[in-house]
Amino acid sequence: MSKLGAGKKVAVILSGCGVYDGAEIHESVLTLLALDRQGAEYQCFAPDIPQHHVINHCTGDEMDQERNVLVESARIARGEIKPVQSLHVEDYDALILPGGFGAAKNLSDFAFNGAEVRVQVDVLAITRAFADEGKPLGLLCIAPALAGRIFSEGVQATIGNDEATALAMEATGVKHVNCPVDDIVVDELRKLVTTPAYMLANRIGEAADGIEKLVEKVLQLA
Amino acid sequence: MSKLGAGKKVAVILSGCGVYDGAEIHESVLTLLALDRQGAEYQCFAPDIPQHHVINHCTGDEMDQERNVLVESARIARGEIKPVQSLHVEDYDALILPGGFGAAKNLSDFAFNGAEVRVQVDVLAITRAFADEGKPLGLLCIAPALAGRIFSEGVQATIGNDEATALAMEATGVKHVNCPVDDIVVDELRKLVTTPAYMLANRIGEAADGIEKLVEKVLQLA
Repeated sequence: MSKLGAGKKVAVILSGCGVYDGAEIHESVLTLLALDRQGAEYQCFAPDIPQHHVINHCTGDEMDQERNVLVESARIARGEIKPVQSLHVEDYDALILPGGFGAAKNLSDFAFNGAEVRVQVDVLAITRAFADEGKPLGLLCIAPALAGRIFSEGVQATIGNDEATALAMEATGVKHVNCPVDDIVVDELRKLVTTPAYMLANRIGEAADGIEKLVEKVLQLA
Repeated sequence: MSKLGAGKKVAVILSGCGVYDGAEIHESVLTLLALDRQGAEYQCFAPDIPQHHVINHCTGDEMDQERNVLVESARIARGEIKPVQSLHVEDYDALILPGGFGAAKNLSDFAFNGAEVRVQVDVLAITRAFADEGKPLGLLCIAPALAGRIFSEGVQATIGNDEATALAMEATGVKHVNCPVDDIVVDELRKLVTTPAYMLANRIGEAADGIEKLVEKVLQLA
């Protein structure tokens, strides 16, 4: 039996390395694992820009240090990573963005500006290109906060059930749908798949359940 | 049917965050996932010491920066991490060390001194304590290079099939056993379980197959 991902290539955009200032590490690795187990090829990308800041993940305090989003994302990708500017929509069948505060601090400014969110210029261009081409997009955790800037008004997405976050998203034109941790929300028309992951997960296995469903659905749509 | 890990607590010692200067991220996350899916509780630990150095994971070059092993490991643990000095053998049923160069550069100096390897003092004390109590130990990837300092002469372990690395290990008293990426080597007498992971893996799914077997065996022995 051939796997869902056989012959399909998926781009993954990372936003650093660590939940509080970059890509959520578990979500990123679980995405790569699910893609590989479904037989898909993947390539990681990240914007070559400074991180918004560096957080000490023991204390939660800001550190007096500068780090680069591409260079730190390379840790998750084991060095196999390219700048987002070299990602071309014609080379891939689908695109997935894991969550973590990096999606809301580096790929966009949602963490600071909420409903007034602006998306990093290269990330905005490439995510819109996938949407325009009708190629599926998977957004995990807080990454769906970018959906209102990528898709047309009324796009359906979930960040779990946090009311304040959902309201800020809705102000950007997203129709928010509450969703349990182990499930996904699918906008079939726009080919957008979202899952709450660590917006709700208390255990890594909970995040994995939703992420596996998201990857399967993205590959089905591709 | 109760899971293998039900009621069992496992300590995981990390060595930073990133394959070239810390804990291998995929191996670490896959270990936590396998433990959770088997119903085990886990707690991450790391030594509160400076990293040997910081490597740019895009270029492989050394960076002019200092990082702390505990603070960087906290990224993988989502902040839920404690110093190795607070790890007490009586509180846990088993201990697992993922690989990555951090095991050979921060937890020990195997990357530089090979057969003359010395293990970081707190890591040596706690790994020996688990061995002395007859509690199982799981070592992934290059971490089995520490086995000769933890266990008595003749302990069986694998780092895959790299001849030079195996010879250096054998010089410390380890009996090296060649092993494919998706399998494990078990020293039943000493309750040591090892798997090659990214010493051999070309894909994340290959590493996951061996790590899942290792976690199952460690939990069986616990």
